[in-house]
Amino acid sequence: MTEAFDVVDIIRTKRDGGTLSVAEIDWVVDAYTRGVVADEQMSALAMAIFLRGMDRGEIARWTAAMIASGERMDFSGLSRPTADKHSTGGVGDKITLPLAPLVAVFDVAVPQLSGRGLGHTGGTLDKLEAIPGWRADLDNDAILRQLEDIGAVICAAGTGLAPADKKLYALRDTTGTVEAIPLIASSIMSKKIAEGTGSLVLDVKVGSGAFMKDIDAARELARTMVALGTDAGVRTTALLTDMSTPLGLTAGNGLEVRESVEVLAGGGPADVVELTVALAREMLDAAGRTDADPRAALADGRAMDVWRRMISAQGGDPDAPLPTAKETETITAQEDGVLTRLDAYAVGVCAWRLGAGRARQGDAVQAAAGVELHAKPGDRVTAGQPLLTMHTDTPERFDRARQALEGGIDIGASDEGVRAGEVVLEKIAG
Amino acid sequence: MTEAFDVVDIIRTKRDGGTLSVAEIDWVVDAYTRGVVADEQMSALAMAIFLRGMDRGEIARWTAAMIASGERMDFSGLSRPTADKHSTGGVGDKITLPLAPLVAVFDVAVPQLSGRGLGHTGGTLDKLEAIPGWRADLDNDAILRQLEDIGAVICAAGTGLAPADKKLYALRDTTGTVEAIPLIASSIMSKKIAEGTGSLVLDVKVGSGAFMKDIDAARELARTMVALGTDAGVRTTALLTDMSTPLGLTAGNGLEVRESVEVLAGGGPADVVELTVALAREMLDAAGRTDADPRAALADGRAMDVWRRMISAQGGDPDAPLPTAKETETITAQEDGVLTRLDAYAVGVCAWRLGAGRARQGDAVQAAAGVELHAKPGDRVTAGQPLLTMHTDTPERFDRARQALEGGIDIGASDEGVRAGEVVLEKIAG
Repeated sequence: MTEAFDVVDIIRTKRDGGTLSVAEIDWVVDAYTRGVVADEQMSALAMAIFLRGMDRGEIARWTAAMIASGERMDFSGLSRPTADKHSTGGVGDKITLPLAPLVAVFDVAVPQLSGRGLGHTGGTLDKLEAIPGWRADLDNDAILRQLEDIGAVICAAGTGLAPADKKLYALRDTTGTVEAIPLIASSIMSKKIAEGTGSLVLDVKVGSGAFMKDIDAARELARTMVALGTDAGVRTTALLTDMSTPLGLTAGNGLEVRESVEVLAGGGPADVVELTVALAREMLDAAGRTDADPRAALADGRAMDVWRRMISAQGGDPDAPLPTAKETETITAQEDGVLTRLDAYAVGVCAWRLGAGRARQGDAVQAAAGVELHAKPGDRVTAGQPLLTMHTDTPERFDRARQALEGGIDIGASDEGVRAGEVVLEKIAG
Repeated sequence: MTEAFDVVDIIRTKRDGGTLSVAEIDWVVDAYTRGVVADEQMSALAMAIFLRGMDRGEIARWTAAMIASGERMDFSGLSRPTADKHSTGGVGDKITLPLAPLVAVFDVAVPQLSGRGLGHTGGTLDKLEAIPGWRADLDNDAILRQLEDIGAVICAAGTGLAPADKKLYALRDTTGTVEAIPLIASSIMSKKIAEGTGSLVLDVKVGSGAFMKDIDAARELARTMVALGTDAGVRTTALLTDMSTPLGLTAGNGLEVRESVEVLAGGGPADVVELTVALAREMLDAAGRTDADPRAALADGRAMDVWRRMISAQGGDPDAPLPTAKETETITAQEDGVLTRLDAYAVGVCAWRLGAGRARQGDAVQAAAGVELHAKPGDRVTAGQPLLTMHTDTPERFDRARQALEGGIDIGASDEGVRAGEVVLEKIAG
C-alpha cells in the first residue's frame, strides 16, 4: 500500500516550526496506530511538538484523529444525563471515590473510566482494588447496565477507546515527552470525547505534585481542554486546584479508600470535602441539576448508599476490613513552630517508594502501602510530634522512602504566607 | 546490571535547554550502542539536541564517546604522512576520485574510507563500483599495505569504527534529525578521528544541493569540526565551497568516473579541476609538502599513474569501458538567453530518480544512470539547444526525473548577478 505522506517530511515541518495540515495529522496518527510510523519516528515528532507547540486547530485535529483510531461509546440511550470528571493527577487525589456516588444520588449517570498509577501519582483503579473482591474490568454492556441501575461506575477504560492515545501515552512516558500541553490535552480529551459523556468537569492540578507546576501553564492546559470539549459538543468546565501539598491526610491505595469512606460518612478532611463538593456542584450544574445539594447528600448517607451499591455491583465487599500494612514508621517534627510546607511531590514519591505505586506498567502495587499525614501546612507543631506515618509490607523500603521526604518538609516561626485549605484556585468555563 | 543514569532524565535536561555532563554523554552513547537506550529514546534526545543545541564541550565529549564505542585505526607505522579529505556531500561531487591519487603522487598516504549514497547525494563507493571488477571492501591490513605501496586507497569504512555513529546515523535519517550541526559535526569527526589520520581537510558544501543551505550555518559547522579535529590532535582545515549548482558536468556513478578520468588526464571541467587542486593544496600543506605542484601532476600524468595502480590494486580494470545507459533523453532550452540557474538539488534528485542513487539502505544503484550537463550557469544558450541529457536503464523513470527539474532551471536576459565558476568561497583554519 502506498502511503499518502512521508513521516520524515511531517517531522521536519513541525521541527522547523510549521503547522501540520489536517491530512498530515490524520495520516500520522493513523499510520502510527497501524505501525507504519515507527516508535522512534513518533517520539521525534512528539519532541518536536513539545518544543515547537501546536496551535488550537492542530490540537483539535490531533484529538479527533486519536478518537477516530478506535471505537466510541454511546450513553445516549440512558434515562439519565451523563456527567464525567477527569483529574490531571495528583498526590492523595481520591476524589473520584466519593464524587461518583455523590453525583449519582441526583439521578445523574457518572461513568468514571479510569486508569492505573504510574510514577508518583496514584491510580483510581489501584485504590479501589484494595477493597477485597472488587473488579475493575467491565464490558460495555455491564457499564451501561450499572449506570442505568446505580448511576455510578468506576472501572477500567476499555482498550477500544483511542488506541492511538494508549500507544502514544506509553511512548511519551519513556521518551521525556509527557509534559507538553498539546499532547496532554489531546490525550485526555480524546478518551473523554470517545467515551461519549454529555458533560465533563476537569480538575486541573497545579503545584509540585502535578504535571503543571505553575498556574499559567495549568490555565493554558485547562483552556485548551475546555475548548476541545466544547467544540466536540461536550459541556466542559475546569477547576484549577492546588497540588502543592497532598489532598487530605492519606496517599496510598487502601489508606485513600478509608479516607473516602470517611467523607461518604459525612466526615473526612476539610480539603477533600471542599473539592468533592465543588466538583459535584459543577457536574450537577452541567447535568441540569441546579437545585441539588451535594453537601446534604454526604451528611445524610445518600452518597454512602450509592457507594455501597456501586462497590457491591463490581464484586467488592463494602464492609470488609481494608488491608493494613505489616510495618509502619513515623516521622516526627524536628522543632517547634508552624508546618509551612509539606511538599506534594515529596510525599508522592515517598508513598510510591513504599509500594503504593509502580515503576513500570504491569508491576504490582501494595494495597496497604502509603503515607498517613498527621499535620498539614498551617498547623502548629511541637518538636517530637508525629508529622506522618509511613506504611509498607516491605520495611527495606523505608530508607529510600524517607530520603524522598528530604527537603520536602519546612517548619517556620509563623504561618505568614502559608496558604492553607484553599483548594479551588480558579474556574475556567467554556 | 544497574545503569548509572536514567535516560528520561537526560532527555529532559536537554529538552529543557540544559547542558549534559561528561558522565551523562559517555553513558548515553554507550548505553545506546549496547541497546539499553532504545531507538525511540535516542530519537527524542536527537530532536531535543536539534532544537536546543549543544555547546562546544558537549559536542567534543559526544564525539569522544562515539570514538570510544569502537576501534581506532593506526597509521603511525607508515613511512608517509597521512592526509584525509571529507566532503559534507553534494551533487556531482566526484572530487575524491582524482584527489586521492593526485595527493599520493607527493608521497603522502591518503586513506579515503568512504560511504554509499543515500538520497540525492551520490556515494563515492557507488561511483567506483561502476568500474568493472573494482571492490570496495578491504581489511585493515590491505588498507595499510595499499597506503604504503601506492599511497591512495578509497574503500568502505569498516564497521568497527564508531559503531555508535553508524547506529545513530541510520536513526537520524528516518527521524528528521539529520541537519543539526552538533550531530553532523560529531558524526563526521568521530569517524575521521577514529580512522587515525594525521591531517584532514573538510570540504563543507553550501547551497541548495548541500545539507547547509546558507553560508552562516556552513561556517558554524566548519568551525565546529575544525575545533574538534584540532583538539583531537588532527591538523584540520575547512574550505567552504559552492553547491548551488552541480560540480562539473556530470551527476551519476559511471558518468562521474568518466569525468574524473578526464581530470586525471589533464582536462576536465574547470570547477572540478579548481576544487581538486585547492583541496590537494590544503592536504599537501598539512602533510608538510609545501613545495608540491598538484596542477603539474595532473598535467604530466603522474596522478593518472597512481589512479591506475589504485584501481588495479582493488581488482578494477582502469582500461575497461564504463557502462553506458540503455536510454537517454535530452532536455533543451525553451528560449534564448543566459542560463542563470541550474539548481544542484533539482539535478541531484533527477539523477537519483534516474537510478543513480537509492531510496533505502541496501537498494541497488544503476552504474550508468545520471545526468550529463551541456551548459552551466553563466553560459549563453539558444532556444532548442540541449541543456542536459538524462541517462537510465529504466526509461519509465524519465517522467519523474524530468519533474524533479521543474523550477530548477532559469534562463534570463543577462548574466548579471550570476556567480559562475567560483567554487571555493572561504577557508576556515584551526
